[in-house]
Amino acid sequence: MNEASELAAAPSQHRIEPATLEDMPQLVELLSALFSLEEDFVPDPKKQEQGVRLILEQPSRGRIFVLRTDHMAVGMANLLFTISTAEGGLVVLLEDVIVHPEHRGQGYGGQLLDYVIQFAREKGFKRITLLTDRISAESQSFFQKHGFKFSSMIPMRLVYPENS
Amino acid sequence: MNEASELAAAPSQHRIEPATLEDMPQLVELLSALFSLEEDFVPDPKKQEQGVRLILEQPSRGRIFVLRTDHMAVGMANLLFTISTAEGGLVVLLEDVIVHPEHRGQGYGGQLLDYVIQFAREKGFKRITLLTDRISAESQSFFQKHGFKFSSMIPMRLVYPENS
Repeated sequence: MNEASELAAAPSQHRIEPATLEDMPQLVELLSALFSLEEDFVPDPKKQEQGVRLILEQPSRGRIFVLRTDHMAVGMANLLFTISTAEGGLVVLLEDVIVHPEHRGQGYGGQLLDYVIQFAREKGFKRITLLTDRISAESQSFFQKHGFKFSSMIPMRLVYPENS
Repeated sequence: MNEASELAAAPSQHRIEPATLEDMPQLVELLSALFSLEEDFVPDPKKQEQGVRLILEQPSRGRIFVLRTDHMAVGMANLLFTISTAEGGLVVLLEDVIVHPEHRGQGYGGQLLDYVIQFAREKGFKRITLLTDRISAESQSFFQKHGFKFSSMIPMRLVYPENS
């Protein structure tokens, strides 16, 4: 087998790593796809870019991981770091877990989630909390399969339109 | 009326202000009372102290407000600051809103919540999210009365016992 045919036969490489500002267009596209699905949110690319930028610029506040295939980010997970008085330490809020619609069904979501769970364990975080869509049984069973349990709490929100 | 009788007749003074490390014993007591009520949590005074200390030592991560009467903290609210990619800016997670059982029915909880809502608005936060107990209708209508709306999301959690 010569070099050219080896290259042609090589499976698509993918890896998970922290996002950088260069990933911005793809992160904004992924977030827009996510917020189109979720009842509570509406996509607004400018806001999504502002939010991503704040996280990338302040690593103490969180980390965005991307799953890349062939130099393109096709999935993301956003970990925000905060403090729990119940657990007595740093905890993770996991948000924005999404794989690009055209790249689903290949196990990327599960690989991304396994990576995040391992990262938080190794860094000594005491808990991961996420909010999943109430109506999406598929999303719930995905997280359950990876060890997440339902909570007996319900979220409530107050939005300040004047601060938007 | 002389000065002494004026003092005796004065109503109990109360004020809302940021907590300090000197409030620790009362904060731990309030949190223990709260976690005894909530299905998801068990009180552990050492953990509560660690969590409170982390917040007080890192003002960029959050703020704990106390309501004091006669030099004693009888109520608290814990605001954690994080970033939203949906809103494109800083948002508040509101946790640990509690008034000491012996000081309820005097409107302290509502005053504390109004204060927090005003604080977050003035500081330019874009949203407040809280998790309230699924089974407590009283707690839900309290937050609704102050402008909070139910979300269509549900929380899921993964806890790392090995990191506790």
